[in-house]
Amino acid sequence: MIFERIKSEGLAHISYFVGSKKEAVVIDPRRDCQVYMELARKEEQNIKYIFETHRNEDYVIGSCELAHQIGARIYHGPGLDFKYGETLTDGQIFHFGKMKLIAIHTPGHTDESMSYALVDPNSDDNAVMIFTGDALFVGDVGRTDLYGPKETLRLSETLYNSLFNKILPLGDGVILCPAHGAGSLCGGAISEQEWSTLGLERRYNPLLQKSCEEFVRFKVAERLERPPYFGKMEEYNLEGPKLLLKLPDPPALSSAEFKKWIDQGAQVVDTREPSAFGGSHINGSYSIWMEGLPGYAGWLLSYDKPILLVLENRKQLEIAVSYLIRLGYDRIEGHLCAGAEACGLESWYTAAHPIDHLGLLSVQELKKRLDHSDNLIVLDVRTDKEWREDHIKNSLHVYVGILEERLDLVPDDKAVAVICSVGNRGSLASSILKREGRREVFNVLGGMMAWQKAGYQLIRKKS
Amino acid sequence: MIFERIKSEGLAHISYFVGSKKEAVVIDPRRDCQVYMELARKEEQNIKYIFETHRNEDYVIGSCELAHQIGARIYHGPGLDFKYGETLTDGQIFHFGKMKLIAIHTPGHTDESMSYALVDPNSDDNAVMIFTGDALFVGDVGRTDLYGPKETLRLSETLYNSLFNKILPLGDGVILCPAHGAGSLCGGAISEQEWSTLGLERRYNPLLQKSCEEFVRFKVAERLERPPYFGKMEEYNLEGPKLLLKLPDPPALSSAEFKKWIDQGAQVVDTREPSAFGGSHINGSYSIWMEGLPGYAGWLLSYDKPILLVLENRKQLEIAVSYLIRLGYDRIEGHLCAGAEACGLESWYTAAHPIDHLGLLSVQELKKRLDHSDNLIVLDVRTDKEWREDHIKNSLHVYVGILEERLDLVPDDKAVAVICSVGNRGSLASSILKREGRREVFNVLGGMMAWQKAGYQLIRKKS
Amino acid sequence: MIFERIKSEGLAHISYFVGSKKEAVVIDPRRDCQVYMELARKEEQNIKYIFETHRNEDYVIGSCELAHQIGARIYHGPGLDFKYGETLTDGQIFHFGKMKLIAIHTPGHTDESMSYALVDPNSDDNAVMIFTGDALFVGDVGRTDLYGPKETLRLSETLYNSLFNKILPLGDGVILCPAHGAGSLCGGAISEQEWSTLGLERRYNPLLQKSCEEFVRFKVAERLERPPYFGKMEEYNLEGPKLLLKLPDPPALSSAEFKKWIDQGAQVVDTREPSAFGGSHINGSYSIWMEGLPGYAGWLLSYDKPILLVLENRKQLEIAVSYLIRLGYDRIEGHLCAGAEACGLESWYTAAHPIDHLGLLSVQELKKRLDHSDNLIVLDVRTDKEWREDHIKNSLHVYVGILEERLDLVPDDKAVAVICSVGNRGSLASSILKREGRREVFNVLGGMMAWQKAGYQLIRKKS
Amino acid sequence: MIFERIKSEGLAHISYFVGSKKEAVVIDPRRDCQVYMELARKEEQNIKYIFETHRNEDYVIGSCELAHQIGARIYHGPGLDFKYGETLTDGQIFHFGKMKLIAIHTPGHTDESMSYALVDPNSDDNAVMIFTGDALFVGDVGRTDLYGPKETLRLSETLYNSLFNKILPLGDGVILCPAHGAGSLCGGAISEQEWSTLGLERRYNPLLQKSCEEFVRFKVAERLERPPYFGKMEEYNLEGPKLLLKLPDPPALSSAEFKKWIDQGAQVVDTREPSAFGGSHINGSYSIWMEGLPGYAGWLLSYDKPILLVLENRKQLEIAVSYLIRLGYDRIEGHLCAGAEACGLESWYTAAHPIDHLGLLSVQELKKRLDHSDNLIVLDVRTDKEWREDHIKNSLHVYVGILEERLDLVPDDKAVAVICSVGNRGSLASSILKREGRREVFNVLGGMMAWQKAGYQLIRKKS
Repeated sequence: MIFERIKSEGLAHISYFVGSKKEAVVIDPRRDCQVYMELARKEEQNIKYIFETHRNEDYVIGSCELAHQIGARIYHGPGLDFKYGETLTDGQIFHFGKMKLIAIHTPGHTDESMSYALVDPNSDDNAVMIFTGDALFVGDVGRTDLYGPKETLRLSETLYNSLFNKILPLGDGVILCPAHGAGSLCGGAISEQEWSTLGLERRYNPLLQKSCEEFVRFKVAERLERPPYFGKMEEYNLEGPKLLLKLPDPPALSSAEFKKWIDQGAQVVDTREPSAFGGSHINGSYSIWMEGLPGYAGWLLSYDKPILLVLENRKQLEIAVSYLIRLGYDRIEGHLCAGAEACGLESWYTAAHPIDHLGLLSVQELKKRLDHSDNLIVLDVRTDKEWREDHIKNSLHVYVGILEERLDLVPDDKAVAVICSVGNRGSLASSILKREGRREVFNVLGGMMAWQKAGYQLIRKKS
Repeated sequence: MIFERIKSEGLAHISYFVGSKKEAVVIDPRRDCQVYMELARKEEQNIKYIFETHRNEDYVIGSCELAHQIGARIYHGPGLDFKYGETLTDGQIFHFGKMKLIAIHTPGHTDESMSYALVDPNSDDNAVMIFTGDALFVGDVGRTDLYGPKETLRLSETLYNSLFNKILPLGDGVILCPAHGAGSLCGGAISEQEWSTLGLERRYNPLLQKSCEEFVRFKVAERLERPPYFGKMEEYNLEGPKLLLKLPDPPALSSAEFKKWIDQGAQVVDTREPSAFGGSHINGSYSIWMEGLPGYAGWLLSYDKPILLVLENRKQLEIAVSYLIRLGYDRIEGHLCAGAEACGLESWYTAAHPIDHLGLLSVQELKKRLDHSDNLIVLDVRTDKEWREDHIKNSLHVYVGILEERLDLVPDDKAVAVICSVGNRGSLASSILKREGRREVFNVLGGMMAWQKAGYQLIRKKS
Repeated sequence: MIFERIKSEGLAHISYFVGSKKEAVVIDPRRDCQVYMELARKEEQNIKYIFETHRNEDYVIGSCELAHQIGARIYHGPGLDFKYGETLTDGQIFHFGKMKLIAIHTPGHTDESMSYALVDPNSDDNAVMIFTGDALFVGDVGRTDLYGPKETLRLSETLYNSLFNKILPLGDGVILCPAHGAGSLCGGAISEQEWSTLGLERRYNPLLQKSCEEFVRFKVAERLERPPYFGKMEEYNLEGPKLLLKLPDPPALSSAEFKKWIDQGAQVVDTREPSAFGGSHINGSYSIWMEGLPGYAGWLLSYDKPILLVLENRKQLEIAVSYLIRLGYDRIEGHLCAGAEACGLESWYTAAHPIDHLGLLSVQELKKRLDHSDNLIVLDVRTDKEWREDHIKNSLHVYVGILEERLDLVPDDKAVAVICSVGNRGSLASSILKREGRREVFNVLGGMMAWQKAGYQLIRKKS
Repeated sequence: MIFERIKSEGLAHISYFVGSKKEAVVIDPRRDCQVYMELARKEEQNIKYIFETHRNEDYVIGSCELAHQIGARIYHGPGLDFKYGETLTDGQIFHFGKMKLIAIHTPGHTDESMSYALVDPNSDDNAVMIFTGDALFVGDVGRTDLYGPKETLRLSETLYNSLFNKILPLGDGVILCPAHGAGSLCGGAISEQEWSTLGLERRYNPLLQKSCEEFVRFKVAERLERPPYFGKMEEYNLEGPKLLLKLPDPPALSSAEFKKWIDQGAQVVDTREPSAFGGSHINGSYSIWMEGLPGYAGWLLSYDKPILLVLENRKQLEIAVSYLIRLGYDRIEGHLCAGAEACGLESWYTAAHPIDHLGLLSVQELKKRLDHSDNLIVLDVRTDKEWREDHIKNSLHVYVGILEERLDLVPDDKAVAVICSVGNRGSLASSILKREGRREVFNVLGGMMAWQKAGYQLIRKKS
């Protein structure tokens, strides 16, 4: 048997390739689906079936793309009016090579959610692995709030039932293969531990230690971020997203061409490190560090405007593009022309185009300023959860994801020192403030980690 | 956490790389250890510890090689006078990053055998994975006959105790990470299923369904191949093998240089497919197909003579060399010079050096010959187990591994048609007969699989 | 300036990529045109123009393919009714980056043949390089017989004029960039020396030492091979060949699927080495070694039937496919399924499908047979030129390219030992004879090189 | 024949690999010599000879390194007491494969300088190519000032003689293969045109248009930069540099380890773009952009202190290391630990270690400041030649290479705006000023190119 986990960084999305005797299945493929085709080629497998665990809301599913390129059949769960693929019934069985896959209806995260049990018929039909999608993660379970507050109670009860009456009974020895790892927005506290079993989860997953009543109460009270692009993803994944055929290859633009796109309304995404963005950047650009692209682009970028990239070097182009197309951002019109090793901004500078700067502060510099001035406000842009854990006295809290919508919360008569955990989200938030015309904006390099390390005072959660 | 299985084909040996927060451990490294260093570099981990599950007998352990290159510490089990590394005590605990590893003495396969439980201290100290070396495999357990018949009983009882009182109690949910997969000589019937848990094994591993008495009786009766090179491996792995520093890179030799080495006693290994070897080959060469090199070189090649390679193309050189050095064959003096795509034999032919041929038969041709002649004997060179399963009437059985020693069993007044399952071992056995001067030797292409497929008669095991 | 020669093996075709300040041109691109796009990406160049030196007859031009993928403009010479691109006038000038290219009409090889002079405007407008297509090679000039015997005289005179009045006057210091190197069928005796200048050619190219009269006499008398596929190429290159978009990726077929294609009339091409093909092969297949594919496929394969491949290993698939599509063979339906390292024939054998063999002889064995038997005829399949140089007494000569058409020349009442220079063309010729039902066919490994090396008698050309 | 140019960026050094029939020569190998070994392997060549054109002064020659690894013989010119290799005589002939190489003594750049003519014996012994080292470049000739002013006259006359009486007589058609391209410090005005011939140079090389008297006068008056590390190179290349065996692989350091090295006197080289360096950097580090490393490290870095690297990302490590070891900087002790895509400075920030900033100005901002303040001085750090061409009124000129020695020239009572052509050397010069404790230092992004583009006033050279 061939078993491969394909992890997509940033989204912490995990898809699976399982092959046996020249026949393979793929579960929850991503849109840049070359990876599965290369595996198939390398391992001499033909991909026979593609299974979706549910209509994903955090990324564009690659089923149609993959099926189009290699001719496999697509299956998903019942109850949604999918415009592509075939609908499963609970208990439906598929054979590939010497293996067997059983589709199990496990609603709760969404109504059509499926799990898939991998069975070795030579071994007494026991399940070896279970692909649980967003029903069960390592250390957590799927969120149940996606249908809105009115439905959360019902979905939570449904999920409890799926977990305790459909998944866990498969046995402690079954290996758990969820659709997400730590960092995903699809669960609240997924563990960094990537490998687990139903047995380990049954004993140690905090959610599985609860009674049904406790479980439902906890889930109903849970507050998780929900970026606005989720709506677009749901639409794409119901209709079947546009076929790409191959990864877009946005051209290297001269600074003149780049400027022309900007003048026509393009959104500029600058993926350089906070220090570089702070030093100088193109007026109006968003600062989103490379690994933050999958998680934060969807909060800010419009699907209706072209996108331009400013990169540290040419090699990052393919990564940035794959991150964006996984979120359905297909209109990437170019990146600032640069040599293989050089940042494209050089051509911008030498053309004497205007640039902007951001103040950058070490925590020592921040402390000194706070100690000597009344006119500086600390804006903490971390999540609610992080902020509750600890924060600087008198700091203002607005989560970076909603900052652009809630600029009214930030006083405009003071200088603003933006802080996050290390400085990346701080740079993004600073770039949002700059876009809105705020003049005195500082990003704190090292963030709360450095503040704490330097031994400065904190307000901590009472436990 | 970073978790990587590194599988060495042919030996079906599995080593593991586990990292957490910049610190990593490697379990049972192979001798061509660049793979671990590349993982460490890619994942930005420093390898802190190297653990051996036991003094391996089927390959050269890479602990010293790896430790020399990156400066890690080596640990192994108690009771053997290892000339390198440090000795563990049962229950000894190691920390790396956020993880914990507990050394568990699990003798039985050998007396010093260790298992290692990987524990996530954040999760209530439960074991997540167990590295069992040759104690427990998927679908099988380690062999207990390596100390000779007198010790097999004792080792079998010991192993039963290790399995039932030390390993299985860790819990059904623990993921099983053994040192070998299907195809290894270290177990009799390891499953092709590569992923399992203690729970799955407890329920479905045939050996774990037995009582202690049944278990011991089965193990004492078990008959497994034991190639002669095992002795050399044990010596190497006790003393610490010679350091390589980098993979040998045997030069491309002209046919004149190649011939000179042969005249000085070099052993020629021809890894081309059976059809090519049969068509023509250098007199006296062994026919060992590429994937067969790890499993069969150790039965035949001398450690005291230089080795030469005849390859299908240049790209196979590195693979062949890595296969051989894993068995401690370091004296690889060259390969027949060829272009990137061309077989080096062309230069041998054009130099008008002597060549030999082997008869090649389809099963149809074999059948016809058997039907019309008394002078052809079928020599079946598969394992005892395969032969007992089914064979051609009146065929003679000698396992390929011992054929060179037992040529007396093969009548020398008849033509010999060698058969195995598909034709690879048949080619090797044929080359052995040719080396001994037998003239009329045929290899049956497609072997017993084709014979059966063609619908010809078989003598089958009574069940 | 960026200057890259892209050499396509086998056809000995050379194309060129020249870039300056982000703008590049490509001259005579091949059909698998990713190589130019990768260069453009790596060097940050935009391909602006594509120039064809003439309607090539030995391969499918990649202009349309490349232009389609990157949007460049295509240019070719006057006088032919091309269905794509734009027509040049003599002396037309193009600018790209800081460089200048001048189109020079240099008919003779064909009427529309162009050369292109690369000029550095900063250096006094001198030509630095000249791209001569098939007008001038290193050590030879283009053939002038492609329009048939009636036109050869006229073309030869025209070519002489182009060489002496248009190309050589550019100056001795100009670097020569021809469209072919040694081994091409587009010239009779192109030098293995790959780099030259007009100065070196003027002094040392044998053809350029002749008077116009001598030149024309020589060219009219010249006899060069002309494979039947040339006609197809001319048609393709006039109309613009079918777009591929990407290299075909023929699937790995099971032996059952493979057999089904054969039963439906597919042509099987076996690229394994002569020894492997001789040992065993699928009945009716052509033996064409990998490097021989570009030069010999066009003599034998039909454009109207599907093509199947038998390869030594999976890695050769892409090479074989690129060789075939360069000749316009797009109907490659699959290759025999195999593991990465294994030859696919194993699955054919184990399915008990029929196989055939070819006799293989060393020159010693050939000599012995010739000395002891009257019933063996030696068939020499080398070119006329090679045969005139030296051959075995009483051998029969038929060039491999025309053998299939002229089987009547080979007596069918005798065994045939086929010989070429080393054994590759011999294997191809043997496979042709086998396809026609000849039973006793032998290929001589090492060929005439080995025969001579062994010191056996030869009939040599009188000089 | 196989012919490969291997270009080392930054130094604009070109070495050559020429092979024929399994035998190859390398001319002027660089120290990271894997490139030649890979070529040899790929092309199935054995490197037989290594030729040095002269004792190079701008990089560490790789002859000993390569010879050690593959066993070839090294040759160089007469008159210097080399501690390795063999000494040539004028006219000495070497054979490899079918080719011939003739050593020609061509002193002038240095006394022991050699050229090598490549001859094809099959073509009437004519030279096809000439490897001229630092005697003749495309568009320029070698510098003649390396022995000091007293010897320049003699060397210039000698070089003229070598060029006109030894090299040019080989014929216009000979292809020119010099040791350097545009950007090298070994010539004053080497052309960007990379390919040329003796014929083209004879007609268009400005130096070759001069009479002997004019030539010598020009060369004696020539003023070229001479970095201090040249002396070290000469010493290394006479003695034979230390063997590396493989490229150093400096470890990823934690910020604590990094800081410890700094406290022990290590030199920090920050290769990030000017904007990033300006935004924030480790106190006391040099800002040297990646492509500037080969050209500027030798002006500033000490051979006696350890070197640390701050990189944009992990992938740049190997490039930076190869650049440094080519200059003999072997003590590279580590780089700041980072993920594959992340800049290592993050760990420095979060550890709350101190950081420094540099002011960054667009030309618009610079102009505004100059217009409104008397307290800002513009420091132009370009070469003399560039400065003479044009500069900003009242700017102070000190070449970046000598700035650290001549800080006395920069008034310390004013703010300093450093300008170069685009901003890279400006960042380096700014970092030098910062190291010396200057507080108000600005780097002008876009440099003089942007200043000119913006249409601001310039003082131009009178022509």
